[in-house]
Amino acid sequence: MTSEDLMVGTALGAWKQSVAQVDKTLAALSDAELQAEIAPGRNRIYYLLGHLTAVNDRLLPLLRLGDRLHPELDEPFIANPDRTFAKDPLEPSALRSAWSEVNGKLLAALEKLRPEEWLERHDAVSVEDFAKEPLRNRLAVLLSRAQHTMLHEGQMRLAKPR
Amino acid sequence: MTSEDLMVGTALGAWKQSVAQVDKTLAALSDAELQAEIAPGRNRIYYLLGHLTAVNDRLLPLLRLGDRLHPELDEPFIANPDRTFAKDPLEPSALRSAWSEVNGKLLAALEKLRPEEWLERHDAVSVEDFAKEPLRNRLAVLLSRAQHTMLHEGQMRLAKPR
Repeated sequence: MTSEDLMVGTALGAWKQSVAQVDKTLAALSDAELQAEIAPGRNRIYYLLGHLTAVNDRLLPLLRLGDRLHPELDEPFIANPDRTFAKDPLEPSALRSAWSEVNGKLLAALEKLRPEEWLERHDAVSVEDFAKEPLRNRLAVLLSRAQHTMLHEGQMRLAKPR
Repeated sequence: MTSEDLMVGTALGAWKQSVAQVDKTLAALSDAELQAEIAPGRNRIYYLLGHLTAVNDRLLPLLRLGDRLHPELDEPFIANPDRTFAKDPLEPSALRSAWSEVNGKLLAALEKLRPEEWLERHDAVSVEDFAKEPLRNRLAVLLSRAQHTMLHEGQMRLAKPR
């Protein structure tokens, strides 16, 4: 393995770890428990799971890895706060499936990227800007999203029964 | 810049982002507000700040970058839960200083590492095990600790006045 391969492998390990932490927290919760708020008056775990699913799903076009699986999740889980709508957009079990499906498709695509492709620009930066700021690459987005996942996982775990 | 330089620069950017997020949350809180619990009966922000300071301080020996600055923080902030001791070990302002001091020393040392040094083993893995598991390198530790920081930052921000 080259140094670049090792660095990419290390970064992918960190990404997988962030998804695995959420999976572990979810496995300890029933569908009914997903309705719990992380703190009084704050987001429900259900909402945060939808939010993480939508944000990770958006990585597919942002990293030019393919089409999104669940664009319909943006409205309830990114554009609006929790409990904006009278009825939740999907059942907890369907949301769990969407989370797994998105991360499965994403990981399969991420694992195919060659080291030099990791250093290419992400899709929200222009060719001109990227020439000046080469750290705005796919790898930066992946690491940033892993941290985003952990930020919310740290909140989700607060609602777990002690 | 080589590919390795770019990858290391990207990873360091993610690390700095995690520290900057905590700094931003802290800047919005008074010393008195650091006493707030992230949720009823849960850790205080003060405790989480001490915990993050101690964990980041431990990176100095773990990454073989030098001696720790604050080993005395392990007992109150890693070995024991919040409010174990009747009196807090240091004033909030002193804890803020320790946090900045640790991250300053750490970043200065991290920025001096060459790409090949990032792929060397961290100090908690043996030479024999590392030969079999080359992803247990310094870079993996850094990315893992950035995620750890964000996990708790996500909790700290819950206590901010809305």
